[in-house]
Amino acid sequence: MSVNSFGRLLRLTTWGESHGVAIGCVLDGCPPGLAIDEAHIQRFLDLRRPGTGPNVSPRQEADAVRILSGVYEGRTTGTPIALMIDNVDARSGDYPRNAPYRPGHADYTYDAKYGLRDPRGGGRASARETAMRVAGGAVARLIIPEVTIKARVVEIGGEPDAGRWDGLLDEARAAGDSLGAVVECIATGVPAGWGAPLYAKLDAELASATMGINAVKGVEIGDGFGAARLKGSENADAMRAGAMFDSNHGGGIAGGISTGQQIVLRVAFKPTSSIRIAVPSIDAAGQEVDAVTKGRHDPCVGIRGAPVVEAMMALVLADHKLLHRGQCG
Amino acid sequence: MSVNSFGRLLRLTTWGESHGVAIGCVLDGCPPGLAIDEAHIQRFLDLRRPGTGPNVSPRQEADAVRILSGVYEGRTTGTPIALMIDNVDARSGDYPRNAPYRPGHADYTYDAKYGLRDPRGGGRASARETAMRVAGGAVARLIIPEVTIKARVVEIGGEPDAGRWDGLLDEARAAGDSLGAVVECIATGVPAGWGAPLYAKLDAELASATMGINAVKGVEIGDGFGAARLKGSENADAMRAGAMFDSNHGGGIAGGISTGQQIVLRVAFKPTSSIRIAVPSIDAAGQEVDAVTKGRHDPCVGIRGAPVVEAMMALVLADHKLLHRGQCG
Amino acid sequence: MSVNSFGRLLRLTTWGESHGVAIGCVLDGCPPGLAIDEAHIQRFLDLRRPGTGPNVSPRQEADAVRILSGVYEGRTTGTPIALMIDNVDARSGDYPRNAPYRPGHADYTYDAKYGLRDPRGGGRASARETAMRVAGGAVARLIIPEVTIKARVVEIGGEPDAGRWDGLLDEARAAGDSLGAVVECIATGVPAGWGAPLYAKLDAELASATMGINAVKGVEIGDGFGAARLKGSENADAMRAGAMFDSNHGGGIAGGISTGQQIVLRVAFKPTSSIRIAVPSIDAAGQEVDAVTKGRHDPCVGIRGAPVVEAMMALVLADHKLLHRGQCG
Amino acid sequence: MSVNSFGRLLRLTTWGESHGVAIGCVLDGCPPGLAIDEAHIQRFLDLRRPGTGPNVSPRQEADAVRILSGVYEGRTTGTPIALMIDNVDARSGDYPRNAPYRPGHADYTYDAKYGLRDPRGGGRASARETAMRVAGGAVARLIIPEVTIKARVVEIGGEPDAGRWDGLLDEARAAGDSLGAVVECIATGVPAGWGAPLYAKLDAELASATMGINAVKGVEIGDGFGAARLKGSENADAMRAGAMFDSNHGGGIAGGISTGQQIVLRVAFKPTSSIRIAVPSIDAAGQEVDAVTKGRHDPCVGIRGAPVVEAMMALVLADHKLLHRGQCG
Repeated sequence: MSVNSFGRLLRLTTWGESHGVAIGCVLDGCPPGLAIDEAHIQRFLDLRRPGTGPNVSPRQEADAVRILSGVYEGRTTGTPIALMIDNVDARSGDYPRNAPYRPGHADYTYDAKYGLRDPRGGGRASARETAMRVAGGAVARLIIPEVTIKARVVEIGGEPDAGRWDGLLDEARAAGDSLGAVVECIATGVPAGWGAPLYAKLDAELASATMGINAVKGVEIGDGFGAARLKGSENADAMRAGAMFDSNHGGGIAGGISTGQQIVLRVAFKPTSSIRIAVPSIDAAGQEVDAVTKGRHDPCVGIRGAPVVEAMMALVLADHKLLHRGQCG
Repeated sequence: MSVNSFGRLLRLTTWGESHGVAIGCVLDGCPPGLAIDEAHIQRFLDLRRPGTGPNVSPRQEADAVRILSGVYEGRTTGTPIALMIDNVDARSGDYPRNAPYRPGHADYTYDAKYGLRDPRGGGRASARETAMRVAGGAVARLIIPEVTIKARVVEIGGEPDAGRWDGLLDEARAAGDSLGAVVECIATGVPAGWGAPLYAKLDAELASATMGINAVKGVEIGDGFGAARLKGSENADAMRAGAMFDSNHGGGIAGGISTGQQIVLRVAFKPTSSIRIAVPSIDAAGQEVDAVTKGRHDPCVGIRGAPVVEAMMALVLADHKLLHRGQCG
Repeated sequence: MSVNSFGRLLRLTTWGESHGVAIGCVLDGCPPGLAIDEAHIQRFLDLRRPGTGPNVSPRQEADAVRILSGVYEGRTTGTPIALMIDNVDARSGDYPRNAPYRPGHADYTYDAKYGLRDPRGGGRASARETAMRVAGGAVARLIIPEVTIKARVVEIGGEPDAGRWDGLLDEARAAGDSLGAVVECIATGVPAGWGAPLYAKLDAELASATMGINAVKGVEIGDGFGAARLKGSENADAMRAGAMFDSNHGGGIAGGISTGQQIVLRVAFKPTSSIRIAVPSIDAAGQEVDAVTKGRHDPCVGIRGAPVVEAMMALVLADHKLLHRGQCG
Repeated sequence: MSVNSFGRLLRLTTWGESHGVAIGCVLDGCPPGLAIDEAHIQRFLDLRRPGTGPNVSPRQEADAVRILSGVYEGRTTGTPIALMIDNVDARSGDYPRNAPYRPGHADYTYDAKYGLRDPRGGGRASARETAMRVAGGAVARLIIPEVTIKARVVEIGGEPDAGRWDGLLDEARAAGDSLGAVVECIATGVPAGWGAPLYAKLDAELASATMGINAVKGVEIGDGFGAARLKGSENADAMRAGAMFDSNHGGGIAGGISTGQQIVLRVAFKPTSSIRIAVPSIDAAGQEVDAVTKGRHDPCVGIRGAPVVEAMMALVLADHKLLHRGQCG
């Protein structure tokens, strides 16, 4: 029931604010006996780390993860795995207390809900939280060695041609603006039979998993919205002997359960809300005041979104492998 | 944890197969004292009922709902509300046992998962299950009288002009084919502050709720995939004194929490998998054989999807009203 | 999260009031392929049925259970199993609306919580609800064929000598009074390794399962309160080669996980609150008035409690068999 | 679903092993705006800390708790509260790897379940985990300022006369043996109406909460097993105008819902399994070998159990206050 937890048998709980002492997570339900060390997790964290290129936030975070529990002599023990990353480069000064609500950000809604919030760097609503999803996903991958998961950006600012992305990003950065992106994630090696009707359909689980990522506003499985424009005869994934399919309009899921094909997911990231262009807004006192972000931010948060989408895919698939084994043996 | 349940404080559990004795649901967590009767629920069921026009399945179902518990003298008591609809027009003969797997349907995946399935009319995977979502949603609406929810088809077969839909549907029916659709759902009257970071973001809850509906393969909040093609400065929903917004690109949700604007959701329904055009497939023995559906089916399941999307919106919002009241008083 | 549900992977949700149309349950998560029919479930229901002896309530209930879903051609399909029993002998007239709150019963607390209640026969708080636990437990037993579960009354009115029980019950009935009872339940055949630290310890799960039964006010595992009076050296269950134990003070559970020994549970049922002896009370208007029960009631509800305790044991063990298989393969 | 989590709306997840880097917890669902600091939590931790008297373990633990998230400028923010205590005095050397299974401890069952375990100091099964329950409970108390919770030892080694306890403990320590204890916990100020039928009855929640504490093997509400020995006329808690009660045999709970009286709970702690007296056992290789504990241990773990029982009471009541507010407004 915890709103900061995700998963059923394999359950990830995250905690921490962008500029607090640290961020962390607890992953419960992991099978025992899996070989694991911090380097394995760190490898995935490094892929999403800011400060590694011109088009991502220049914030310098070591993001060095520590395993605090659940592992003994290099193996998971079946007890909760606690992971933590200290916040070593948090500069609260960038975020004055009485700053205007940044349109599109959680500033206004957190205040509306809770009556107060941690304003430092977006607090709990910061994209920094996704580091713990990546860390949890790195562990989840160990549960599903038969599966390969690969996400990549397929569109930036509406442009599918990757050769034009650098130019678009340079323009956006120069203008103090930001761009949206679409990330595609493909899982190969998932056997037929994972997933579950009806409220735990793989489609629903993946949709929940990715729509909970900051800045995500759309998700598609297989042809997604494109399928709504096909005829049934065009959309049908014909089958052949050996449970082979002629096509994969369904994205590897039928009736909420994996078909044995590749699982194909697409996720829409909106452009970062934090931009240097002034936008009319109000402050906590209700006074009209322009919002202009001055802190360190990505011109395209979607670029760093790919490893996060991979992680959520891994968490969902590992969870459903365990669920399937539990119910169906 | 039940995969046939949905919701947190307000929890819907559905049961039943298309051609079994009956279908039903249990809605737990409903506040006490709400005025309710069967006619209220029936009104919403009638909106999704097949057999009411040329473009929906001719199956004649009374779909008369009965309240079996949780209501006393016309008021909810706070105990579980059980609802049931008898299956009075179930013709199993339409579905021979050794029928080929219908591509796109759950036939193959259920067999792959469970080793057996109820083949009558799609069994548990039938769209008939959505009747209980509609019934549950009708109760949920009573919990949120301040909210108005309205869904409508905005696209059929890729065509946004409603004046052309009848023609497209006639063509599809004549050809034994089917069409996809896009449904848009808008909730008005939701106050700022409902929803919760991070894994229970309203975006994530609505995505899970609607992607669990049969035939849904995509979901968007606000501008959705369109937002991925905007610049940050274009996508920003500027604010004015009185917490008024200039635009609603975010679909009424920021940081997973409602902003007080309209909640805007769009859902993609694939074309019905059951078509009269032969599609290469296999049967349970693995033999190649064409699948040709002969039963009663909708040429466009999305048309009947609108009331279901409304119901899921109602369930999510009612649940989060209770959750918000629980945590924040 | 539903307060009317129980279990993790195997999840029972019950609904219904004593004098409503019917009572029922949904059991979700059952493995597919198990042979089952209504007669199997009915056999267990008949064991708890009232009206079968002088010392249980004379209410005549056929309690004929129907399987409404989740079973096809005599096998479980892996989808939710809905069970229902019609209330054929409900006489609401026995329960006037403005009756005084029966001390010890839920009358007052339901009104305090919900502001209203279904007064007919105790409504949701009636022991009749336990019929659905028994029905669910009958299905759960099929999941754990390796386990034998047997509960029996070991004490009535504080008297362990069964030869004296009939006399005590006759006296209580003649006096319009009631007696408490202690039920012991033993599960044989549980392998070592089921259960889970820490909040899902078998001890905790069994305690929750049985303390949720009407009239239960105490529960012990193994020596229970007796263990609190032993020394560590006396309480130690010494082990021998072959994982054999010299004793079973721990009731077959150590660290929340089964040891491979018999699981031993004892449950205290208070005397029925519904007695024919007047007890000072108040009515819904707050007026002082004696409560005198006139309806049909058991002089010792614990007698019918044994099959219910067995059922809860079966539900817990089946759930943990699936959980263990899910996590540990 | 996480087996290392407890609660519904207010959810505690704990992690950590006795001799790992640290132990910690995440408390999710806490209302925003509550004044809190580390000193408040530390005060309760100090009450359960070992090393504070002759009859508790001499292990020297500072047990200094740190708040890592969820609090900003001295107030809860409504986001997850992460708490951590570093393990500064962990001496792994006391626990050789191939030690015999300590009878009554989780050594054997963890190996049986997981195939491996962290042997240092009992690992996850150590009573050290209860520090995080106490920490979580300290936060929970802030949610229910109207309630006063007080637990005390009422029996040691079967002896209710506190004047004789020191002697008994001295004897047990001298003999290398241990004693059980009974703890009673009373909550005052709980209004009528908290709790919920049927599987979330306050009785069931409290039983689950306390039976999940290490070494607890029995739990009673109100008269508990004593009620099973009373007649219905003796056990009835007569009511008077003003919703006053003549007695409290029911322990402040009827039908699973609070009556407005004191909530009374009794919990049986078995004697510590770790004793210096040799007990026949086996090692991981299955060889017979005596188990003799040499580490630092309490002669009576129940003494330190009282603050833990208080904490669990606080967590249950705070959770149900929020649940009640959620459903019933």
